[in-house]
Amino acid sequence: MLDNNVFASFVFYSVLLVLKMYVIAFITGQVRLRKKAFANPEDALRHGGTQYHRGDPYVERCRRAHQNDMENIFPFLFLGAIYSLTEPTLFVARLHFLAFFLCRIVHSVAYLCQLKAPTRSVAYVIGQVPCLSMLLQILFAVASHW
Amino acid sequence: MLDNNVFASFVFYSVLLVLKMYVIAFITGQVRLRKKAFANPEDALRHGGTQYHRGDPYVERCRRAHQNDMENIFPFLFLGAIYSLTEPTLFVARLHFLAFFLCRIVHSVAYLCQLKAPTRSVAYVIGQVPCLSMLLQILFAVASHW
Amino acid sequence: MLDNNVFASFVFYSVLLVLKMYVIAFITGQVRLRKKAFANPEDALRHGGTQYHRGDPYVERCRRAHQNDMENIFPFLFLGAIYSLTEPTLFVARLHFLAFFLCRIVHSVAYLCQLKAPTRSVAYVIGQVPCLSMLLQILFAVASHW
Repeated sequence: MLDNNVFASFVFYSVLLVLKMYVIAFITGQVRLRKKAFANPEDALRHGGTQYHRGDPYVERCRRAHQNDMENIFPFLFLGAIYSLTEPTLFVARLHFLAFFLCRIVHSVAYLCQLKAPTRSVAYVIGQVPCLSMLLQILFAVASHW
Repeated sequence: MLDNNVFASFVFYSVLLVLKMYVIAFITGQVRLRKKAFANPEDALRHGGTQYHRGDPYVERCRRAHQNDMENIFPFLFLGAIYSLTEPTLFVARLHFLAFFLCRIVHSVAYLCQLKAPTRSVAYVIGQVPCLSMLLQILFAVASHW
Repeated sequence: MLDNNVFASFVFYSVLLVLKMYVIAFITGQVRLRKKAFANPEDALRHGGTQYHRGDPYVERCRRAHQNDMENIFPFLFLGAIYSLTEPTLFVARLHFLAFFLCRIVHSVAYLCQLKAPTRSVAYVIGQVPCLSMLLQILFAVASHW
């Protein structure tokens, strides 16, 4: 399947997006350590005392960025894989993957750097366009197989 | 793979479930705008002021519905795809996919419309039956290949 | 694809991890019932009254364990499947899957049993190693196909 250029292109962007999610998880952990804000009493105890079992607005921001990624990147991993099986042209497929990829990068940067609204929301909405396009094309492909 | 009727049937219901999740995300956003309850200060600022950086019970309800979908629909996307490779009969496979699909629709409606308990929980539990059935059949199929 | 030994091995460990996530969801539900701590007023009403529409620290702990699983096991389901297509040797592939599997079991036990830090964090970090290894190998495989 990796010999299929469309699928290989999908895999390339998907894997980078998974890496991006791991980076957000890493940043969250670093912020927790630096701000001494731990979700679990056992972690707080190890880092100075139970008074550090507390929340922090920037930790919450990191978590919202991660959560939004799960809500959107995981469905992309599914839709993109199935879409690759519907034999789209490489150019059009790549346009879908690249558009989604760039939007999610902008989304994460806008979230973590607290960029002025509506940067983040616009990145989110534009990122949904290739997903909805793939979703519709999959439905048409499945319908035409019946 | 889309020529495989079982897989095509799985893809059909899966894609509709992903669409359902996008609809919940859209509703959450609309409720945030209508109730002026934003998770980020930059969003609140754009929509009238930082006093709208606040929570709202119905937004939280939408988020719980979305969260429960992620906890259950994402595993289904994996289990269903693998299960389709185990060569089940089309009728039995479709029964699994359709049962899960209908339960998740009922689950979302029960959540968002705040239907009387235990409607939502019953939909959740019945929806787990086809998932556990597929999970066991996959384990048997893998074991028989060894 | 299930005839491919690497893929079959991946499926085996993945399905057990999905089952582990279902077990955490089940435990969360049981704790909610036993501690009478419900996220929805309609559930509280059915189990004694709206005063049970409340949070509970152990329910929150279960939910954090589940959330961390989603953040890590779902990407594994994707990376492992693609990695299986890159024709790794069975021994090395299995080492990746088994290491991740064991780390996630330890992670869940450490979370739910509130084991002394840094047991849980160490399990999380070691579990990331096979994921990052697969991620890099996938990138090399895709690059070499171009």
